[in-house]
Parts: sequence; structure tokens; C-alpha cells
Amino acid sequence: MENKREKIDKMSAEVKDSNPYSRLMALQKMGIVKDYERIRNFSAIIVGVGGVGSVCAEMLVRCGFGKLILYDYDKIELANMNRLFYTPDQIGMTKVEAAKETLAKINPDVEIEAYSMNICSNENYDQFVSKIKEGSLSKASVDLVISCVDNYAARMTINRICNELNQLWMESGVSENAMSGHIQFIIPGETACFGCAPPLVVAEKGENHKVKRDGVCAASLPTTMGIVAGLLAQNVLKYLLNFGEVSYLLSYNAMLNFFSNSELKPNPTCNDKNCVIRQESFNKQEQSTRKPKQEKNEVEIKPQITKEEEDEFKKYGICFDEDTTSHTVVKQKEINTENQSLDDLQKQLGSIFKKK
Amino acid sequence: MENKREKIDKMSAEVKDSNPYSRLMALQKMGIVKDYERIRNFSAIIVGVGGVGSVCAEMLVRCGFGKLILYDYDKIELANMNRLFYTPDQIGMTKVEAAKETLAKINPDVEIEAYSMNICSNENYDQFVSKIKEGSLSKASVDLVISCVDNYAARMTINRICNELNQLWMESGVSENAMSGHIQFIIPGETACFGCAPPLVVAEKGENHKVKRDGVCAASLPTTMGIVAGLLAQNVLKYLLNFGEVSYLLSYNAMLNFFSNSELKPNPTCNDKNCVIRQESFNKQEQSTRKPKQEKNEVEIKPQITKEEEDEFKKYGICFDEDTTSHTVVKQKEINTENQSLDDLQKQLGSIFKKK
Repeated sequence: MENKREKIDKMSAEVKDSNPYSRLMALQKMGIVKDYERIRNFSAIIVGVGGVGSVCAEMLVRCGFGKLILYDYDKIELANMNRLFYTPDQIGMTKVEAAKETLAKINPDVEIEAYSMNICSNENYDQFVSKIKEGSLSKASVDLVISCVDNYAARMTINRICNELNQLWMESGVSENAMSGHIQFIIPGETACFGCAPPLVVAEKGENHKVKRDGVCAASLPTTMGIVAGLLAQNVLKYLLNFGEVSYLLSYNAMLNFFSNSELKPNPTCNDKNCVIRQESFNKQEQSTRKPKQEKNEVEIKPQITKEEEDEFKKYGICFDEDTTSHTVVKQKEINTENQSLDDLQKQLGSIFKKK
Repeated sequence: MENKREKIDKMSAEVKDSNPYSRLMALQKMGIVKDYERIRNFSAIIVGVGGVGSVCAEMLVRCGFGKLILYDYDKIELANMNRLFYTPDQIGMTKVEAAKETLAKINPDVEIEAYSMNICSNENYDQFVSKIKEGSLSKASVDLVISCVDNYAARMTINRICNELNQLWMESGVSENAMSGHIQFIIPGETACFGCAPPLVVAEKGENHKVKRDGVCAASLPTTMGIVAGLLAQNVLKYLLNFGEVSYLLSYNAMLNFFSNSELKPNPTCNDKNCVIRQESFNKQEQSTRKPKQEKNEVEIKPQITKEEEDEFKKYGICFDEDTTSHTVVKQKEINTENQSLDDLQKQLGSIFKKK
């Protein structure tokens, strides 16, 4: 009986109980991912390790991610226990300190840095920028900044810095009533930035606005936050390991079990001058596309159903045709944010939050 | 600094750091749930506490669920560390023993029973049946059986017993390649049972079929399993606390970010005689509907956007109309499984797994 997880030098696909990577390396054998072990080279910054960020971090750590750099300035309270990850014995610790301890215990192969600081403060600007620029395992820029914050100011800070540094990032948010959430993948110049058209569900003003309003605290559920964290981490894996269709804006409505997938185009009159510069550069083709190419032929999904199983299904009156068992990549809905057509934008944005 | 979570007699909505229920009770103030504290009366059996069941259990425990009865016969291995919940220091423990310990630490208000046994074994039949019939906090039948197993035999066992006992249950599953999953809510006689038309993604024969095939182990990801666990626990909350639209069959395709929502009607020629008896009883109206009624007027969702915020949004060219900010409940797609129209069934089932 082992009680401590030792570091592992090389990921193995061997099928044995003591191999923590066997079921991840199996993604290769099953034709989903071409080279799973590349995950050990990736690094990301996670800003905000609350109900979404901590769970997203845990998922990436369990997947064997290379390096995570965590930012948060909150301490753990009993009032946080309605979301996954933190436990009552950690009350009073800073979230990043507790997260680092838990994550290192789960998978010591992952390099974790933790900073209990507010990225919105002027005095932390240089530190945060240098971590984006030189935080990877090879001292280059990180692969992604992952935003799991709960306020508008922090999102706008991340947006401004990522536009400035031309840094790819993913945004996430859950509504105040815990009934909806979204993830958004932002490629400066190529997709809308957070300032081009902030999604309705998170756009709020001011730091403390959402926390307390007339003695009413925001509602939250481990379900909605866990689902959003899962969709976010899944999108990180899909983008970095190049499988499946990456989401650019994926919204979840818990009341209606409704999910919508779309893409916001950048706004040529965005208030952020660096966003406009990135757009011009992309449009002049000085900057080529950074969207992952679908290596469709190389990682095509095989139907998981054998001839024998198919016969069994026929007893239930269920048969298969090409459309049912093979996957095809369908283009996502694109939404234009150019402000010369505001009425259109309204209608298009509105349709994201409506039932098909 | 508190380090142990004490039991709490009554759920409070008071907004303070030391209240673990403030953000759940806020669901009432926000108009989502009518009487949140009812959650303390509910009890459920979770069969299978692996990658989906353990996370579903943790979510319900953090929500303050009344009582959970856990079944599993596996022990924890390092090879399980690629999913959420278990940690390397628990290796060698039975899953239910470790789960009970962790869950009790997170929320001692929840009553937890744990049985390390295989519900498919004949010698465990009486014990399992008696827990369904008398396992609730008031010694009546549990509110739900939640299936989070990884094999066909266990699903068919649960299905058979629930048809026999007229017990409502929820099914869940994740595919062998970790790229799709589903949840299904089964009301005997009123919806399809698992035997009427098992969803494609989990229908497998035999106990060990999926575990090892020519040295290839099934792939799994904490993301897909976490998302399915979240959708499952969300559906449990929605059904028991009566908010939003309950799902009867919700499928997730990770490659395409595609979610489909539908409902399978019972098959009048189902092989399970108790299913047919329940259908007849329901059709003769001896058994009234057990689907939750949408208390639409009472728990109507208020738009979370103030006039002030609306003005701010206008700066981005985003405006609101009724359709964008209010939620309406849309009827789910119904799929008929009557076997006199097999061609139709194929087409209808096929469409679940296709992109809209």
C-alpha cells in the first residue's frame, strides 16, 4: 500500500494499477490525442482559484500539466464550502497556499507557483507581466492565461495586459444567481477581446459590486461552477493537445439545460488601442492565425462500437449509419461586433442566450 | 481560525464568512428555489463512487443534502488519480470508506452510509432492496437512486430493481474514449427504462468488457467526468428542489461541444415485465405523473441586470429585450421507442448524437 505519490520521470501507457497516467495515455491508443505526453511541456497562469479556478487547476494537475502559476488574494472561509475543492481544515489559509499544497499532494510532477496577490494593483503589474512573459518551463511566455475571477475589474486588467502582450487567454464566469456561466477563448486581434463585447453574464462594474448587495450575497452552486470549470479545462486540453473542436464562446444555461456555441469577431472600434493594433496586424496578415488546425485525418475518431455490439443493438431496434457513429467538425456560429451595425449585434448577442 | 466544521442545526441565510450555507440559501432570495432548506430531508443512493459518482456525491454533500447511501466494491489505485476526488494517500482504501471519510469532513451535517459491496451479487439483493425501500431519513423509500457505474450489468440490475419497486432513478455514463457522456432520468412507466432503449454510449455487454481489451485500458478525463457529474447533480437538485427544466436524457459530446436534450418514451414491448406493468398502470392513470410541475410563476427568474448596468452595456452596443433577459421553459424533444416504427426510432436516436 503506497501512501505518497512519487514523482514520475516519463509518462507510461502501461496498463497497471500503480500508473497514474495509464487512462490519459489511453487517449493516444484510442486515437483522440496524437502525443499526450506533450502536456508536460505546457504552462498556464490561473487567475482566481475560487469555485471555478481551483477545480480547473485540479483537473489540469490530474492530467499531468507541466506548470501552473496561481494568483488569488482571498482567504478560505466556511462560506466557500458550498463549492468543490477546499475543505474546512483549510479555513484561514490563503486560497493559493491551500491550493498549492493540495495540488502538489495530488500530482507532484506538476510545477506549481502560487502568489497571494491582487493582479489589479499597480504595484503587482510588473510581477504579473513578467510571469506571463517568462513563466513557462523554458522561461518563455506561458501558453495560456486562464481567468477564473469573479469581478469585472480583474477581467479588464487581464484583457488589457493580454492585448498589450499579444497573449492568448481564456475567460470564464458564472452568473450571480448560479444559473448560467460561460467560457471564452480570446486570441488578440483574431477574436473579440473582453472589451470588444463583454458577455452579459459577467459584465459588472466595480470590485465589490457582486459580493454584497443589501445584505444579499451572490448565490453559488458546486454543480454550475464544476460544469464551467470542466468546460474550461476541457477547452484548455483541446486547444493545447489539438483534438476536437475548440470553443471560442460557450454558454451554459442551467435552468434550460441549454448550451450555445458561438464566436465573437473583434470590434474594429474597440476602446482598447492594443486590441485594434492586433486586429490591424492580423488583417494585414503580419500575424497568422493562431486557431488550432483540425488534424482531422490524423486524429479521426473511430466508432467505439464493434460488429458484435452492433448486432446486440439491433435487438433494441437501434442501427447505425455514418452520421451517427462518425464525428464531423461543424463550423461555429460567428458573430460580428463591428459597431456600424449595432442593431444586428444586439440581435446576434441576444440569440446566444435564447433557446434554439 | 476554525479547523473543524461543526454540525449546524438549522440552515441560515445570514451573509457571514462562517456560514457554509449563505450562498445556497441565497438561491431563495434570488428567486431560483422556493424553499432551499428542504434539501435536508432528501435521501439518495449512489451506486458507483468512481470518477462520476464521487464528484456527484461531493456536490450534493456541499449543498447540504440530507442523506447519501454509497455503494461500490472497488479499492483506490494510483490509476484512478486522473479523475477528481480521491488522493494518493487514500490508495488501498475501499472507495466507499475513503469517500465517507472525505465527505463527512466536508459537511458533517449530511448522514452518510457506505457499503463496499457489489449490488449485482445475489447475496446482496435483499440488502440493496431494503435500502431503496427504507433508506430515507424517515425510514421510507429514498427519493432517488443515482447510478454512476461503469458497466452494463450493474445498470441492468438497477433498472430491474427500480422497475420492480417503482423507484425513480437517474443514470449516467461516460464513453470509453472519454469524449462523450450522458445523464438519464428514469420514471418507471412514464419514461423509457434503461432496458427500453439503452443509450448508445454505455450499452456494453459483460462486466469486464470495457476495462481491458488487448492491453488497452479505457481512457478517462477529469474534465468529461466532472462535467457529467455536474450535470447529474444539477439534475438531482432541479428535480428535488423543483427549479428549472429537468433533463430526461442529456448527452454531451466533448469533441464537438455538443449537448442534446431529449426524452425517450417507454417501449410497450420492453423485455422487462415490470416496466410494461408500470406503463400500463400509468396509461390507465392508476399512477399519476411524477414529473415535476414547473412552478413557473412562483419561481420566475428575474433578470440580474439593473437599469444602471443596462446603461453601461449600451456603451458596448448591447441592449436587452424580453427574449434576452427572461427565461422561458421550452418543451424537450420527445422520442418514441415503440418498436412498431423501428426506422423512425433509428432516425430519432441518431439525431441525438448529431450536430444540430
